Amino acid sequence: MTENILYAQSGGVTSVINATACGVIKTARTSKRFKKVFAAKNGILGVLNEEIIDTTRESSRIIDSLIHTPGGAFGSCRYKLRSIDDDISEYVRLVDVFKAHKIKYFLYNGGGDSQDTANKVGHLSSKLGYSISCIGIPKTIDNDLPITDSSPGFGSVAKYVATSTLEASLDVKSMAESSTKVFLFEVMGRNAGWIAASSGLIKSKSMSAPHVILFPEIQFDENKFIKKVKEAVIKSGYCVVVASEGIKRKDGSFVSDAGSIDAFGHSQMGGVSPFLADLVKRKLKFKCHWAVADYLQRSARHLASSTDVKQAYALGEAAVRFAEDGQNMVMPVIRRIPGKKYRWKIESAKLSRVANVERKLPRSYITQNGFGITKKAKEYLLPLIQGEEYPPYAAGLPSYSYPKNELVTKKLPAFPG
Amino acid sequence: MTENILYAQSGGVTSVINATACGVIKTARTSKRFKKVFAAKNGILGVLNEEIIDTTRESSRIIDSLIHTPGGAFGSCRYKLRSIDDDISEYVRLVDVFKAHKIKYFLYNGGGDSQDTANKVGHLSSKLGYSISCIGIPKTIDNDLPITDSSPGFGSVAKYVATSTLEASLDVKSMAESSTKVFLFEVMGRNAGWIAASSGLIKSKSMSAPHVILFPEIQFDENKFIKKVKEAVIKSGYCVVVASEGIKRKDGSFVSDAGSIDAFGHSQMGGVSPFLADLVKRKLKFKCHWAVADYLQRSARHLASSTDVKQAYALGEAAVRFAEDGQNMVMPVIRRIPGKKYRWKIESAKLSRVANVERKLPRSYITQNGFGITKKAKEYLLPLIQGEEYPPYAAGLPSYSYPKNELVTKKLPAFPG
Repeated sequence: MTENILYAQSGGVTSVINATACGVIKTARTSKRFKKVFAAKNGILGVLNEEIIDTTRESSRIIDSLIHTPGGAFGSCRYKLRSIDDDISEYVRLVDVFKAHKIKYFLYNGGGDSQDTANKVGHLSSKLGYSISCIGIPKTIDNDLPITDSSPGFGSVAKYVATSTLEASLDVKSMAESSTKVFLFEVMGRNAGWIAASSGLIKSKSMSAPHVILFPEIQFDENKFIKKVKEAVIKSGYCVVVASEGIKRKDGSFVSDAGSIDAFGHSQMGGVSPFLADLVKRKLKFKCHWAVADYLQRSARHLASSTDVKQAYALGEAAVRFAEDGQNMVMPVIRRIPGKKYRWKIESAKLSRVANVERKLPRSYITQNGFGITKKAKEYLLPLIQGEEYPPYAAGLPSYSYPKNELVTKKLPAFPG
Repeated sequence: MTENILYAQSGGVTSVINATACGVIKTARTSKRFKKVFAAKNGILGVLNEEIIDTTRESSRIIDSLIHTPGGAFGSCRYKLRSIDDDISEYVRLVDVFKAHKIKYFLYNGGGDSQDTANKVGHLSSKLGYSISCIGIPKTIDNDLPITDSSPGFGSVAKYVATSTLEASLDVKSMAESSTKVFLFEVMGRNAGWIAASSGLIKSKSMSAPHVILFPEIQFDENKFIKKVKEAVIKSGYCVVVASEGIKRKDGSFVSDAGSIDAFGHSQMGGVSPFLADLVKRKLKFKCHWAVADYLQRSARHLASSTDVKQAYALGEAAVRFAEDGQNMVMPVIRRIPGKKYRWKIESAKLSRVANVERKLPRSYITQNGFGITKKAKEYLLPLIQGEEYPPYAAGLPSYSYPKNELVTKKLPAFPG
């Protein structure tokens, strides 16, 4: 074995992307097919910059600990390769770096945009004659990748959002008679409402919250929203609203792009929840509080779902098996096995069918009034948040340790030269 | 035994206030001194409205489960009694309700304002001749009560804020080269910076975040702030800012009261983090993200500190013992026993010394530049976040169940009549 395998992380990181890294490295380390397991620093940028981390220098203790460590252990990036027909230079560079470090296997761990990159890299074989096995590995908290039943990162965010909504709802409920009546919780999801939907899992006979869920898939209507909030306060004494950051108006504009200006005439950064809070305050005169989860939700490894961690690891492992088989331009995906009990297996999907495709929340998952989730949605979501996979703690805090990330010696001139 | 004891919750609830309720009810149930353990619905408002919950109708399973249930199990309120000299009517009403339900012991669980209420109720003995044993029980996430070394609710918020800052920092760090460079995290603390300070616990040799902590105790200076953020990005590649909601300008005004107006001319609800994010964006042109923890932080029972839960329970237990002894106008407090290892015991403090007094973060806990915490602060804070006290989970979510809260039959006319 003289050939190396390279793993890289791309796009927004998740609380379990390193569990996938763990699956990749542990599996590849024991495989007879690969000499060394490399990781690119900051995704495809690290390949272009010839910043290659030699993971053989990392202890197995550190590699094991990746399974419970959030963030991106090797760094991630937001970078999209141009089409090979528009600009061949980056592709030539990739081949140079791959050749210089004897890399014949490339695993790219990311969402829809990143799988576009993986798909392009996979074409090096046919377009530039450099034989490579390029495997995509799914990852996105947005859960918007097609074909796969779910994507690593999402189950843990769903568990975090459902738990946080439950806890905050109990808080608001206790105080509503003489204090805050409306609580707004802004969650991620620019184009797809999967994350917001997960808050609906807490609704039960004894818990009326969340009373309103706002999805990007449903056009935001100010009057309907206000009416619904008012109804909830009259009926339950309080109202919990969970809003996707990506809700849009009739004209297609994001509600968060409110175009507000501050007292000094400067334009204000958007935000759905301050906008909605202001609306509720003006129209209904209710005391209102709001929270924005932002990166907290996608990094909350302390509350990860076991299902999610297991799948993240298994997909990393499967990607290595696909590489061992010399496959190219494919991605391991989760297939849900029909039946009452949740079971899943890993299958293979072509990258060309995954790249740049966004899967939105089906209309059948949203209640007719547009403010809640259906039984069908609950059945889909519930298995994904099962199990508590706590990280170890030291001195009261989760003990998250990162690899040293030592780079191999560069062999090429800088790029672009 | 023919006399009853009444417990009530007041002010903003915490993730462990029900652990105190659990300590109160379990201890009082086994005491020979009390006939029934009552709880007021929504704090002192429930007493005034004669809305009295009979906790003897609750199973011991439900009472036991209060130890891991966030929110306020019996409801809380924000309500301050007027001085007895200004308005005697509410006090006469309290005596009427206490007499009607044979209540001779009153335990009030809250922060500084609530202890003012407890202190006033305690004066019923001397001013209206109705002998009562009134005991305050500390509770505040703000940790601003005097005399007690810490207050139940704070340790768990500190653990949540430190953990969340750690997790989000790892996330930002992974992406900083090609994405977000500055992350702002807004936490509670209107007048005292204890909560913001707790984020400083994550700083270590391998973790440079949080790079900037903004305390209400330190006057906010726009230029110094921007300079510090820029320095951090140059040095670490990214910058994490933890900001108290209560930071103030030179003129004493809250930064959150930015007085901004939206595109339609409506005034916008404040918020420190959107303001700071806009500032960073304008002055430094860095990509910026922000999160607001709001109620999430004070209800996050899923990440409670063991120390906090134990103290919350123990203070409830101690309050019942004080009542058994017929004490009046006192509050059990935590005393830290000097020594290397963290140990604590419960002592007693007079309510008159507690009511309406706010304890701020000492200057010696803040670094000279005003943006971090000192070793002394870390030594104080660290013991308070120790231990993980997880709630039980069912079907992927914490199982939080509330009492039935059945009211006893009213015996009096409505108030005010």
